[in-house]
Amino acid sequence: MSIEYRFAVNVLPKPGILDPQGRAVEGSLAHLAIEGVTAVRVGRRVELTVAADDEGAARTVVEQLARELLSNPLIEAFGLELLGATSSTTSATGAGR
Amino acid sequence: MSIEYRFAVNVLPKPGILDPQGRAVEGSLAHLAIEGVTAVRVGRRVELTVAADDEGAARTVVEQLARELLSNPLIEAFGLELLGATSSTTSATGAGR
Repeated sequence: MSIEYRFAVNVLPKPGILDPQGRAVEGSLAHLAIEGVTAVRVGRRVELTVAADDEGAARTVVEQLARELLSNPLIEAFGLELLGATSSTTSATGAGR
Repeated sequence: MSIEYRFAVNVLPKPGILDPQGRAVEGSLAHLAIEGVTAVRVGRRVELTVAADDEGAARTVVEQLARELLSNPLIEAFGLELLGATSSTTSATGAGR
């Protein structure tokens, strides 16, 4: 009955917020002899499956999760990415696929 | 002369590799009264700008960086995402835009 939506939540430091991991990556570029790379920002990516009746309902759940658990709204911004959808009619058999 | 490409590198634990952060997120769902969320995988997302002559050259640099610095190839897989491109002809003025 319900549809399984695969989402990605991308969490990144807001513009202007200090990003020590990004600075660390930039500091390592010289050791790898890599040139021309700038403006590195390091964040998180969370991929998850949510079962819902339609895409709107799924998006609402993922947004709540992103806002309340996966990001710190003071210093981070998040974006959602829909990766795919599969309708799970009778998933009693073949669950391993 | 060169073009500035904005890329994202998505790094996620390989299938079958233990993902304790993903399990921790799943364990917190009940506290938020969120149902229907499964298969949570937690990884990193790195966004960066690379100046190169064309997209192929830019992609080569980002792939080297992802392979040698941003991911652990034993336990993680990465994917590249091209976010945009801007030609930087004379960027001496208006650099803040």
